[in-house]
Amino acid sequence: MARTKVRSKDKHINNLAKIVSGPYSILYDQEDLLAYDCDGFTIHKHLPKAVVFPNNTEEVAELVKYCAENSLPYLARGAGTGLSGGAIPLNEEVIISLVKMKRLLSVDLENRRAVVEPGYVNLKLTNSIADKGYYYAPDPSSQSCCTIGGNVAENAGGAHCLKYGVTTNHILGLEVVLPNGEIIEIGHDGIPDAPGYDLLGLLTGSEGTLGIVTKITVRILKNPEAKQTVLAYFDHVEDGSQAVSDIISAGIVPAALEMMDKTAIEGVEAASFPVGHPKDIEALLLIEVDGVSAGINEQINHILQVCKNHHVREVKVAQDEQERARWWANRKTGFGAMGAISADYLVQDGVIPRSKLPEVLNRINEISAESGLRIANIFHAGDGNLHPLILFDARIPGASEKALEAGSACLQVCADVGGSITGEHGVGIEKINEMRFIFTDEEIAAQTNIREVFNPNNLLNAGKLFPSPGRCVEIKKEMKAAMASS
Amino acid sequence: MARTKVRSKDKHINNLAKIVSGPYSILYDQEDLLAYDCDGFTIHKHLPKAVVFPNNTEEVAELVKYCAENSLPYLARGAGTGLSGGAIPLNEEVIISLVKMKRLLSVDLENRRAVVEPGYVNLKLTNSIADKGYYYAPDPSSQSCCTIGGNVAENAGGAHCLKYGVTTNHILGLEVVLPNGEIIEIGHDGIPDAPGYDLLGLLTGSEGTLGIVTKITVRILKNPEAKQTVLAYFDHVEDGSQAVSDIISAGIVPAALEMMDKTAIEGVEAASFPVGHPKDIEALLLIEVDGVSAGINEQINHILQVCKNHHVREVKVAQDEQERARWWANRKTGFGAMGAISADYLVQDGVIPRSKLPEVLNRINEISAESGLRIANIFHAGDGNLHPLILFDARIPGASEKALEAGSACLQVCADVGGSITGEHGVGIEKINEMRFIFTDEEIAAQTNIREVFNPNNLLNAGKLFPSPGRCVEIKKEMKAAMASS
Repeated sequence: MARTKVRSKDKHINNLAKIVSGPYSILYDQEDLLAYDCDGFTIHKHLPKAVVFPNNTEEVAELVKYCAENSLPYLARGAGTGLSGGAIPLNEEVIISLVKMKRLLSVDLENRRAVVEPGYVNLKLTNSIADKGYYYAPDPSSQSCCTIGGNVAENAGGAHCLKYGVTTNHILGLEVVLPNGEIIEIGHDGIPDAPGYDLLGLLTGSEGTLGIVTKITVRILKNPEAKQTVLAYFDHVEDGSQAVSDIISAGIVPAALEMMDKTAIEGVEAASFPVGHPKDIEALLLIEVDGVSAGINEQINHILQVCKNHHVREVKVAQDEQERARWWANRKTGFGAMGAISADYLVQDGVIPRSKLPEVLNRINEISAESGLRIANIFHAGDGNLHPLILFDARIPGASEKALEAGSACLQVCADVGGSITGEHGVGIEKINEMRFIFTDEEIAAQTNIREVFNPNNLLNAGKLFPSPGRCVEIKKEMKAAMASS
Repeated sequence: MARTKVRSKDKHINNLAKIVSGPYSILYDQEDLLAYDCDGFTIHKHLPKAVVFPNNTEEVAELVKYCAENSLPYLARGAGTGLSGGAIPLNEEVIISLVKMKRLLSVDLENRRAVVEPGYVNLKLTNSIADKGYYYAPDPSSQSCCTIGGNVAENAGGAHCLKYGVTTNHILGLEVVLPNGEIIEIGHDGIPDAPGYDLLGLLTGSEGTLGIVTKITVRILKNPEAKQTVLAYFDHVEDGSQAVSDIISAGIVPAALEMMDKTAIEGVEAASFPVGHPKDIEALLLIEVDGVSAGINEQINHILQVCKNHHVREVKVAQDEQERARWWANRKTGFGAMGAISADYLVQDGVIPRSKLPEVLNRINEISAESGLRIANIFHAGDGNLHPLILFDARIPGASEKALEAGSACLQVCADVGGSITGEHGVGIEKINEMRFIFTDEEIAAQTNIREVFNPNNLLNAGKLFPSPGRCVEIKKEMKAAMASS
């Protein structure tokens, strides 16, 4: 294919364009760049210098070398669905978009692994092996459009991570372009627990600050022989929480164990996929069990009994795949559904020890009362990963600031009970201040020292993940100003 | 307690002794040091400068600072059961022994975690929570004496890692003394998948080269409700291999799936825990399934059927816990049992994709024929973790060298089929040359650059894990000389 013709006054634009073959290789007009000024975290917007679309690892390496030699800030981007701003070009970065590197390179059913390019969409992998009885486990709610490269950067989770673990538990190997332009392979041929340092774990979840992943070997799983899904309605949140605790204590490991509170239910029932949840309940649990057929009914019966022990108002088992799919669609579109009951919303992502659930939900209620903002809770109850959704109306003066403060207060509560400030959405630019809730200066230094080794000029995705005092205060200010004026 | 009185001509010995409180705080006499000249890898021996026994984190930090300020090489040691030489003092190190830091600090059953000191013995944890129905999953064969600190350093595995994962999958938090004397906490309060870089993964399995772990938060598991164990005898190794493959393909995840070949069976039947395996079979499988009671019999029936499909000669289910324990004792003492049929043996530790099992076992047979040395195989077949045991007699001139060469050749075979040179024993000094089988110079540099950040003066456990050209050739030479003269 012919190379894209570029005539820019900027020599770097012309030179970058020469590295990438084929048409549609670069964007540099202001109006084209507008689509790249933020990701799923839409509060903070910045235009990139350009967006380039390499076709292969070698082109990525050439682009990285060019940026390094010319001191151009740059970052990698997948589908741009991240929720913490990890792909926002704070420093007029050259965005290296990986959407053209979207091939499924190989599938090895016998050894249960597949190799994909970073721009390959998460759900496509499951779709392409489903007829053979296999699937890829990590299932972020955005799985129909997010890329596996982006999942690696953010160590993405999903509803079924309770039993199956987050992305890092499913990555067997990576090809990575380092900021010095070298190409390395880690996790050779998908053998788990390779000798040497765990670079695989280090790169996964490093939020695009250590290198650019250009090839990914993932673990694929055999479809469970059987699957059963339960929906349980509770009049009291405490009863629902206690049921969660008792199910886990019984030694059952559900594939998923989700909770929604009253405000969340109001939202999902008002939006695209209503399933007729009663509106006067205080909490619902969506529980899925999978595995070999033998014994699955006994597990379901045990779960039903636990729910009854905790005064469940109504509990039912999905009668067919259609009903199950409807329940999950209702849950998975839950964040967006908040739009049906609120002008704006901020989603938070905290983690707590499961035993602190009732205490933390009470504290979040207090934060809601103090701020005067409604807070809906939709979350992965089984692994204590909370998603408080703070509802506000940016048109009301001061509301945006209050929402940001309430979000930060929720994370402080999580940190106070021994939890964490993010379970699966990442830190990005959104939570760099909150990193101080859980890390000392020494602990942050131990990490930024590692970044320094990989990324000594800090040209790759600078200003993300770790607080660097001046800059992050500034970002928070800009964010508040942007929200106030939006 | 009174401080140990030390009167040495070496000022460093006197100063180190002053840091550590109580009696039995330091060893420095030649004859006392002899017990510390090697670990479970006994081929290469070196005396340390001294062995100190700190009581707590602060003393460890003071010792580390003293070593750093005085350029004294040092390393940490647990029970010294490691099989790759990770705790051998190559550079006259000060050994910081962690055996006095052996407390179980807390158990939190509700959130399924426990906090231990590094010198706490692996099996003690399970013993201390067994009556409440819980256990700690990683079960190296040395679990009755190895320490959890050592397990973290080596990322130890065990027979039940097929279903439950190796040590890194069970570590939720670490307190670490860095080589600059700073104390950091990583994996705060046991919340998995914390934000920032995965220091937890990086430290686990770093073979004592990045810091000294002084506190460990581990995941504990609920005892499975039920457990069934199967023993199957095959006339052909290929039939056994195919049965392994079919069990996994059926979607069953056994807790353990072990294989022994004919030579191994001869050994274990001649040693401490014979169970009456027939001596004319070519392979046996030891298969354990655990989980909720409901359905476990169906899984066992499926496994029995798979074995029958592959011409099993005899297959039986353990009738009670005593029988099960006898089968496992026979398996777990397998390495040492080789002493009953051979003057000396070398154990190797390679990993291969499961589908390559028949091919690799054939190649190992060829290596055995070429070297004229018998090779027994006892291994974790379910996850492709091989343990070729190379039998030799060091009194025969040239036999030691041949054994080392045969071991290296086995690892080359593993690397050639896309595998790895160690599954659970670590690299230590034993396999630093073989690191080149699977890593390029760039890939090794990416790792040694990280070591440099943590351990800039390379005083901590130098000469381990990564090849540094001159030194490792020299070690191999010394090893061969030592073996030839032993």
